[in-house]
Amino acid sequence: MSKVINRLAALAVVLVPVILSCCLSFRDRPQATDPTRIAIMSWLSIDPSSHFSIANIPFGIISTSSDETPRPAVAIGDYALDLKAFAAGGGFASAPEVEKHAGVFSARTLNDFAALGRQHHRAVREYLQDVLKADTKHPELLKDNDKLKKAALVPRSDVQNHLPMAVGDYTDYYAGKNHAYNVGVLFRGAAAALQPNYLHLPVAYHGRASSVVVSGTPIRRPWGQILKDPKAEPKIPSLSPCQRLDIELEMGMFICRENQLGSPIPVDKAEEYVFGYVLMNDWSARDIQAWEYVPLGPFTAKNLGTSISPWIVLADALKDAKGPGIPNDTQLLPYLQEKTKDNVLSVELEVDYITPNGNKTTISRTNSKNLLWSWPQMIAHHTITGCNLRPGDLFGSGTISGEDSKSQGSILEQTQGGKVALQLEGGEERKFLQDGDTLVIRGWAGKEGALVGFGEVSGQILPAHPLF
Amino acid sequence: MSKVINRLAALAVVLVPVILSCCLSFRDRPQATDPTRIAIMSWLSIDPSSHFSIANIPFGIISTSSDETPRPAVAIGDYALDLKAFAAGGGFASAPEVEKHAGVFSARTLNDFAALGRQHHRAVREYLQDVLKADTKHPELLKDNDKLKKAALVPRSDVQNHLPMAVGDYTDYYAGKNHAYNVGVLFRGAAAALQPNYLHLPVAYHGRASSVVVSGTPIRRPWGQILKDPKAEPKIPSLSPCQRLDIELEMGMFICRENQLGSPIPVDKAEEYVFGYVLMNDWSARDIQAWEYVPLGPFTAKNLGTSISPWIVLADALKDAKGPGIPNDTQLLPYLQEKTKDNVLSVELEVDYITPNGNKTTISRTNSKNLLWSWPQMIAHHTITGCNLRPGDLFGSGTISGEDSKSQGSILEQTQGGKVALQLEGGEERKFLQDGDTLVIRGWAGKEGALVGFGEVSGQILPAHPLF
Repeated sequence: MSKVINRLAALAVVLVPVILSCCLSFRDRPQATDPTRIAIMSWLSIDPSSHFSIANIPFGIISTSSDETPRPAVAIGDYALDLKAFAAGGGFASAPEVEKHAGVFSARTLNDFAALGRQHHRAVREYLQDVLKADTKHPELLKDNDKLKKAALVPRSDVQNHLPMAVGDYTDYYAGKNHAYNVGVLFRGAAAALQPNYLHLPVAYHGRASSVVVSGTPIRRPWGQILKDPKAEPKIPSLSPCQRLDIELEMGMFICRENQLGSPIPVDKAEEYVFGYVLMNDWSARDIQAWEYVPLGPFTAKNLGTSISPWIVLADALKDAKGPGIPNDTQLLPYLQEKTKDNVLSVELEVDYITPNGNKTTISRTNSKNLLWSWPQMIAHHTITGCNLRPGDLFGSGTISGEDSKSQGSILEQTQGGKVALQLEGGEERKFLQDGDTLVIRGWAGKEGALVGFGEVSGQILPAHPLF
Repeated sequence: MSKVINRLAALAVVLVPVILSCCLSFRDRPQATDPTRIAIMSWLSIDPSSHFSIANIPFGIISTSSDETPRPAVAIGDYALDLKAFAAGGGFASAPEVEKHAGVFSARTLNDFAALGRQHHRAVREYLQDVLKADTKHPELLKDNDKLKKAALVPRSDVQNHLPMAVGDYTDYYAGKNHAYNVGVLFRGAAAALQPNYLHLPVAYHGRASSVVVSGTPIRRPWGQILKDPKAEPKIPSLSPCQRLDIELEMGMFICRENQLGSPIPVDKAEEYVFGYVLMNDWSARDIQAWEYVPLGPFTAKNLGTSISPWIVLADALKDAKGPGIPNDTQLLPYLQEKTKDNVLSVELEVDYITPNGNKTTISRTNSKNLLWSWPQMIAHHTITGCNLRPGDLFGSGTISGEDSKSQGSILEQTQGGKVALQLEGGEERKFLQDGDTLVIRGWAGKEGALVGFGEVSGQILPAHPLF
């Protein structure tokens, strides 16, 4: 209820001048009088708990009922600033270098914007921060420009989010050492849980780019080959709807710059290739995976869908949210040795489990520092054999798990392989995902009033189709 | 030398009328009088040994020195028919349905053409066959249209080929059972050579789409992590240029139609998703692969480059080149059971090894029937968990090896893991690829005069870069 009031209040702050100037009769709309609302550094009313403070300015692709064409926007408080409308209305008039490239804000994805490079992203983000801050140097651009506010500032509740990038290749790492160990024990036993290569290189495999979807897209329970009794011999698979459907709590990273095929990227230059970050849920069919993955790795068990959060938080916005990752005493080869120490991203993470009965349970609280490798190390390793990256390529971190069950990023780990049921609110239990269940991941860095957050990535499980 | 004469002769057939009509003085050019040249069903002079008979009509993307914009074309004899020029010159005037969609022939890739579907590909191919055949119903379109012949028929020797499709996702199968067994013995020993799942499903992994390149692109020897002594304990990797660089002889298949995420494609409808086929060389760094691939499969060892032949042979052109694959007595699950029996593609394949000294040795002769699964079975399995395919997706068959060493599709197998040197012409030897070596794969179906061939896919190994 307070959320509704907050939204209305925020709406009022923007719309009142527009309303007055247009002589429309909106007199019953509540004014921005809620004392808990503090306009932190912005002339827009932004709740201090908002993930989209002026310190953030994440980029996404939106459409609205009045304009169904997908187009770039940034999230700010309860609003999306439509960059196509902003550019068309002269919003970039005080930044000639940005305005020259404003065509990228008419595209249906952020790939063209990303390809302009880190320096350009920085210029646009800092320019928008200036336009939005309370003591903006250019109030005429938006703050006092009622026409442009009306055209470009859209309540996020009225916005449809789309996949922010056309994903080129999607690579999924396995850098969550706690997860890798836990799953290794379940699949291969404790002795072979971590392979001899694990501490020497960021283990990864190629994922499926076509099945990356934006938050809110429902996920269909897959059919696939499973062993109903994995211990029976001979091993004869059945075709069945997945019985062990799971989540994987991950961070995602988008690439903004290409290198030539045959030319590795040095680890200390890799940061320039990072566009920004998203939350990721890499839905996984554990029973299908266990049967298919030897010897070439996971394939159909991961192709059912990978959900990402809609707003890409720019690399710059999280440049100070770095710290030590999981310690690794291994002597690394030179191409993985970073000059910058403690370079692992530190983002607070939570997973909510919502059952069809409406019971909501936070099943995991962890942090992205539970990774063995930094993003620059992953980039350096990805390209050491000469692989070419392209703007729009997506990297997943691998499942992020802390050391105890309340901080693990998959149901498989939390239930010890489906042996111990997860206890949910309302007395409900789960060993794996059931039809109708909704999983929500949230993530943020920073402090109240200046949060740099991702919002959320959510997905609901649909029942398996009747087959053919 | 005879090739030069043939080319000149073929050129003359086309150009003479143009020359005469333009009153240019080309009187010294030889006439098409070579008695070994027979115009098989075409008014163009096509050598009977040409891979690009009128029975073929494969599609590619070309540019020329006079027009550097990549654009669609078909290969016919020693020529490329530039479809952009052909369409612009009214070449599709007798096919209104094709002309309506002629915009796809101004694109820089074949993706838009592919997305029009099998029926459309068939209509265009049959139309072009009619335009090119000796007794064409429409001689006014090209045969007797000197202006359009001059504009649209380009000697292939003057043409630069480009990657024919923007590759969406690239999936590499492991359907060459002989290869899978041979490599399994080398990597894991005979007892675990083929995993329990191998005969039940088409094993595959996701490859890297960005590093797919067109024939002729040089391949840089990669750096990577290797174990210099794989048996030493503890296992400490070194960073080194790859010491065991290899080829993989494969067929590739491009997808032309999308399915929705969550909706499997029935095996008996899968043929409608096949655009066409290419030859493929999936260059592989065996020493890097052996160290990195457990537990998630090959990654950087395969990202250095995957070469494909430039001309996509349409599914229709090879619809009769089908037969039994490698026998499989396993009771398949219903979604892999095809109504069409003996549905494995049968294409003759050869591999030439050319050393920097110019010595050329055919090191392998085999056939694509050495596969355990048909393309429709691979499609059905790929989508059983709901994975969405898109036009431009590329499937690799996996390495194709016959049963003896002269029919194996990798150097790893032919040298028994680098133990027995390959004997080449001129007394040269190889255990793996050396810098400057060029590998060429050729493939074709059909009989002389009506060959449906791929031409070739070739690549030369460049020395490793100094690192950083």
